[in-house]
Amino acid sequence: MLPTNVSIFEVGARDGLQNEVPVSTADKLILIDQLADAGIKRIEAGSFVSPKWVPQMADSNDVLRQIKRKPNVVYSALTPNLKGFELALAAGADEVAIFGAASESFSQKNINCSIDESIARFAPLIGAAQKHNIRVRGYVSCVLGCPYEGDIAVSEVARVSELLYQMGCYEISLGDTIGVGTPIKARQMVEAVAKVVPIDKLALHFHDTYGQALANIFACLETGVSVFDASVAGLGGCPYAKGASGNLATEDLVYMLHGVGIDTGIDLTKLALAGDNISRVLGRASGSKVANAIRT
Amino acid sequence: MLPTNVSIFEVGARDGLQNEVPVSTADKLILIDQLADAGIKRIEAGSFVSPKWVPQMADSNDVLRQIKRKPNVVYSALTPNLKGFELALAAGADEVAIFGAASESFSQKNINCSIDESIARFAPLIGAAQKHNIRVRGYVSCVLGCPYEGDIAVSEVARVSELLYQMGCYEISLGDTIGVGTPIKARQMVEAVAKVVPIDKLALHFHDTYGQALANIFACLETGVSVFDASVAGLGGCPYAKGASGNLATEDLVYMLHGVGIDTGIDLTKLALAGDNISRVLGRASGSKVANAIRT
Repeated sequence: MLPTNVSIFEVGARDGLQNEVPVSTADKLILIDQLADAGIKRIEAGSFVSPKWVPQMADSNDVLRQIKRKPNVVYSALTPNLKGFELALAAGADEVAIFGAASESFSQKNINCSIDESIARFAPLIGAAQKHNIRVRGYVSCVLGCPYEGDIAVSEVARVSELLYQMGCYEISLGDTIGVGTPIKARQMVEAVAKVVPIDKLALHFHDTYGQALANIFACLETGVSVFDASVAGLGGCPYAKGASGNLATEDLVYMLHGVGIDTGIDLTKLALAGDNISRVLGRASGSKVANAIRT
Repeated sequence: MLPTNVSIFEVGARDGLQNEVPVSTADKLILIDQLADAGIKRIEAGSFVSPKWVPQMADSNDVLRQIKRKPNVVYSALTPNLKGFELALAAGADEVAIFGAASESFSQKNINCSIDESIARFAPLIGAAQKHNIRVRGYVSCVLGCPYEGDIAVSEVARVSELLYQMGCYEISLGDTIGVGTPIKARQMVEAVAKVVPIDKLALHFHDTYGQALANIFACLETGVSVFDASVAGLGGCPYAKGASGNLATEDLVYMLHGVGIDTGIDLTKLALAGDNISRVLGRASGSKVANAIRT
């Protein structure tokens, strides 16, 4: 039994653009505006990390402040710590996101501390967010494989997801960071996590590095999961993944969902135009097959 | 219940290369040799159509004759008529393929006759093939949509498939020629055809124009279908499809199948090298995300 409607969490302006050549604040604002105009209701608009590490996101403060707000659209930001949260709050972020890994090696190599330490460090941020009535989303990376460890036990994915959920995250986004997952494993992973976190609090964030993302999502739809992260035009990728070819293109996901009779509230033509526009700005072809097929 | 093993029917050297810039006979022979070396057991090696219409296949006679034959590998050719069959037979094709459309408009615009007329014209070819103990494969195009008609009734797909099967085709390959299908419709189509043609006589030939091919195949796996057509490096596409982005890359399909525990007998690394090699010859990037991800 498939869900009758799903929610798309658009990450192109953050997870996408942070892995592309830098674009201007004005171009980001156009992208975000066009995404909202296409019917996207949840847009990750920036990241309050150090510009030393992610120069592409150095203008997130300006982006968040200058967005032409549409009603019923949630504009969010990635926040690595309390300072980042305070900046995001001041800039007007409607919600924020934190992150942990399901792989111990990935956590150590990526942020130099254990999974549990990295999550514990978010406690002050979550406390501050609760005080300000700001919802916190939790990302879990490497849920279907790690570039250093290979396979990751679903029990570990479930443990980290439960930890973030019990700390106060309202939704847990399960990331196949390197895109190595395949459909049966993806479904088994979601089923395992759904035993400790309610299925309606789970999202899937699958990368398309191996071309498997849509098949994986289709395989998981019957578990009842109904929130999916995607990146318009397939913007971005994971810098840790060898040969990463980018996120799953939102257009391709929306096409499949509409095709199987699931409502998204999104105008696919407008969405593809938004993707085509930012692809032109980047001087590269769209990573969406649907956008390339429907372009006239 | 998924099948435990599947058969891959590799169409890159025919359906792929007929939609690319022409390559030399020598390069085709290298491709076919590398495919067989990677463990592919069924290779469509050429097409005996008029070189006026498909100049890329003008050397199919030489290709078929010069293949370095491997035991247990079936080398086949597309044959539009009795003359084409006789040429293919003389050149040493192990089996041949004929084709019909599930869309009346597509048949009319493509070959200027009705579906039923087009299929009836194959009777002499099938008779000659039976006399020579050559198996005939039947392609049905537009099974999930037509560029002129849009949706195609599954009853029509079933009718045309049954017609080809009853005329003597040993296997019916159901083609989503323009790649517009989505998973639930794909599965329903296969279920409808399986009522009139045994499921073990069906193959799926899904194009990836809208990025849906793998999700569609995964959705169909549970029907018991276990033969899949694909094109190494995503070679080719359909000239009738606006913005066609090529066939489904065999590497991406094999990766998924292996990931869900299905045996194909194929060495994925060798397969990707074959795809990388022909992509270099064509001077274009591989259309396989897996090949791009695993390349070192």
